[in-house]
Amino acid sequence: MPSQFDPPSGTRDFLAADIEQREHAFEVLRGVFRSYGFEPLQTPAFERLDVLLGKYGDEGDKLVFKILRRGEHEASGEADLALRYDMTVPLARVAAAYGSQLPTPYKRYAMGPVWRADRPGKDRYREFVQCDVDTLGSASSLADAEILCAQHDALAALGLREFRILLNSRRALAGLLEAFGVPEDIGSGVLISLDKLDKLAPEEVVAELTGRGLPEAQAGELVGALTAPDSADRVRVALTKTETGTAGLDEIVTVLALVAGQIPAGRIAFTPRMVRGLSYYTGPIWELVAEGVAGSIGAGGRYDHLIEQLGGPDVPGTGTSFGVERILALLPGGTPSGRLDVAVTVLGQDFAPAAFGFAATARGAGLRSSVYLGGSGKLGRQLKWASDSGARWCLIFGERERAGAVVTVRDMASGDQAEVPVDDLGGYLARAAAEAG
Amino acid sequence: MPSQFDPPSGTRDFLAADIEQREHAFEVLRGVFRSYGFEPLQTPAFERLDVLLGKYGDEGDKLVFKILRRGEHEASGEADLALRYDMTVPLARVAAAYGSQLPTPYKRYAMGPVWRADRPGKDRYREFVQCDVDTLGSASSLADAEILCAQHDALAALGLREFRILLNSRRALAGLLEAFGVPEDIGSGVLISLDKLDKLAPEEVVAELTGRGLPEAQAGELVGALTAPDSADRVRVALTKTETGTAGLDEIVTVLALVAGQIPAGRIAFTPRMVRGLSYYTGPIWELVAEGVAGSIGAGGRYDHLIEQLGGPDVPGTGTSFGVERILALLPGGTPSGRLDVAVTVLGQDFAPAAFGFAATARGAGLRSSVYLGGSGKLGRQLKWASDSGARWCLIFGERERAGAVVTVRDMASGDQAEVPVDDLGGYLARAAAEAG
Repeated sequence: MPSQFDPPSGTRDFLAADIEQREHAFEVLRGVFRSYGFEPLQTPAFERLDVLLGKYGDEGDKLVFKILRRGEHEASGEADLALRYDMTVPLARVAAAYGSQLPTPYKRYAMGPVWRADRPGKDRYREFVQCDVDTLGSASSLADAEILCAQHDALAALGLREFRILLNSRRALAGLLEAFGVPEDIGSGVLISLDKLDKLAPEEVVAELTGRGLPEAQAGELVGALTAPDSADRVRVALTKTETGTAGLDEIVTVLALVAGQIPAGRIAFTPRMVRGLSYYTGPIWELVAEGVAGSIGAGGRYDHLIEQLGGPDVPGTGTSFGVERILALLPGGTPSGRLDVAVTVLGQDFAPAAFGFAATARGAGLRSSVYLGGSGKLGRQLKWASDSGARWCLIFGERERAGAVVTVRDMASGDQAEVPVDDLGGYLARAAAEAG
Repeated sequence: MPSQFDPPSGTRDFLAADIEQREHAFEVLRGVFRSYGFEPLQTPAFERLDVLLGKYGDEGDKLVFKILRRGEHEASGEADLALRYDMTVPLARVAAAYGSQLPTPYKRYAMGPVWRADRPGKDRYREFVQCDVDTLGSASSLADAEILCAQHDALAALGLREFRILLNSRRALAGLLEAFGVPEDIGSGVLISLDKLDKLAPEEVVAELTGRGLPEAQAGELVGALTAPDSADRVRVALTKTETGTAGLDEIVTVLALVAGQIPAGRIAFTPRMVRGLSYYTGPIWELVAEGVAGSIGAGGRYDHLIEQLGGPDVPGTGTSFGVERILALLPGGTPSGRLDVAVTVLGQDFAPAAFGFAATARGAGLRSSVYLGGSGKLGRQLKWASDSGARWCLIFGERERAGAVVTVRDMASGDQAEVPVDDLGGYLARAAAEAG
């Protein structure tokens, strides 16, 4: 039940354990991107409204969070800024702004929150992490293949095993329509219908296609070719009949040859029925799917005119997105580590400076450590706090210890206690930590 | 000159070298906070407007970026959400929402962007990183002292040496006013004037104080005591005259005793004229200053009623902020590392799959590696690219190498070349990297 203290609809608070899992995954992803020579890029959370609007189509524009003008202009009720909706429009702006300062090709990754005023639902948020990897300035299939390898390695590095890459090509799709005699003017509509083959029954898609003006026989042949068990082979044969189809097939064969040594054969396959709805793709396209996950966990392709359409320079581009929230949901939750390694008791105000020193000594030995900050002077209460904080050791320092210049080190797992000379505390804890692993 | 491709006024794009420096600093800070047992907290970029407004005073409310309602409500010109202005209001909301799930005390750090529609200026941005460390639920001076130690260690870990911590106490300030006979009703106004002692001449502050209704002789004595070389000693004596002053002095002495072993003596001092403008502080207050930096690089204090005032539970609190952008400006820029360690040439399409394999081998040896993605088949051109990318080694693989099952490894610094058997490439690169350090 939502309360007045909940975060706004579609957004989340992340407490320590969640952050630990998420940050670890982000660090793994960054490490893989870096290893391929992709550089990070960070742009502001908001852009000028005119930079964003008109870039996503009407549906997209409606989902943009707009920021009200300020000061005397606030009363106008107008917006002049908007939260970023994706990482691609900012990339186009950056490519325009810093063109000559950027390396060629410009290989960058961007990872951070984006905001969409979508209806919140399972794994669908209004604030979520977008992770994109793109190469601008290379028209080569090598760039496409490199992006695919990086995406594959990144998912594998996260520990995902059960995922597959569906590969296709916009040119191959155009060749396919040509080969099956689909009139050009209904081509894009036909592709939209074909994109539903993973949700609708073949006969439903045939019905849609005939509704779009494709004769039933042709529609049946086309859908038959795309849903047959030997679909890839049948489509290959069909594609070689046209120039465009042959070029598309070449793209696919080239990419598959390049990634062959890096991506296990079972994980990537030519998938003629995979369409990708977005009209801006111009070359190879791909989608990543995982067992038990509705929708894709990643997708991308080549978009040789998009950056210019978005207001950037005329450069070829290719890139991919990670469905970060879906991917995180696939990863094991992990066991959140305790907050502390070493808890230090404070058995009265005049022991406090010494306690501060012991905590510092423990930190010097690479251990997370804190003194007791509560109001109770009772040892039992403080041991309870030490245990709640997940500490491996608790340091006890009272009259007796002070007289002997020792610290009692209690192993919170076994209950064993040792009296350690104050001067040797750092060494003792370092050795104990090394033994504990 | 601003162009249409610049980021919005007061915001910045961060390219690779900037991000490297910033992320490194953030990682150092996080490491220190973790070592003290502070946990991370991440809240959404925006909050409901009613959660934010009314919390910062009229001036602050004007600086909040408000988000327009969506869909059919957009035309109303009304806002329902706003970008977070600080990390404290979200902390109060989280403390209210997750109270019993949070540890006691709740020690958390928050590091991330906040947004203020301030007039942009030198080191003043509309989007900037806020870094706060707070402890909720402990009324003990130990919590104040722990925050100070953590802040000190964090700055020291970043490599800052020339900074000082000015320590005072709200109770001591109240006692000071009492000791110098300042009437209660003008007390807060007097503190506002005293806060200007580091910007105005003593006589100007005296004039302001008399303007506020303080007799000139008293105003002169007060300012004299605060600006004398032995100011701290004179104020100590004055404070012992009243109960409040004695309590304030006790707070300061306690905190100084606790941090004595951890913070070098010259770096922290009782500073009676340091006022901190914010009225919500209730106990010790502090400000961190650095040579050559106008304003503070950090500040904080105890605020035992603030969380409740902000809509959270009634818990004592203490915490501090880092002036992250100012601190980053003090750090050496560092030498941005090259984008690549190993650049791999592609001397024709049919060498490309092998080149992909070599790049993967280099990554397997822990090196950042990429193949040439450009359109030129010329070695000279590709070596130029390798050099531009900062690569330490360039791998060359042509007809001759293929025939001999070797790779030519060119040391880009010396120009030396070695022919390395394909099977030994990974080992060779790992050894070379270890030697290069």
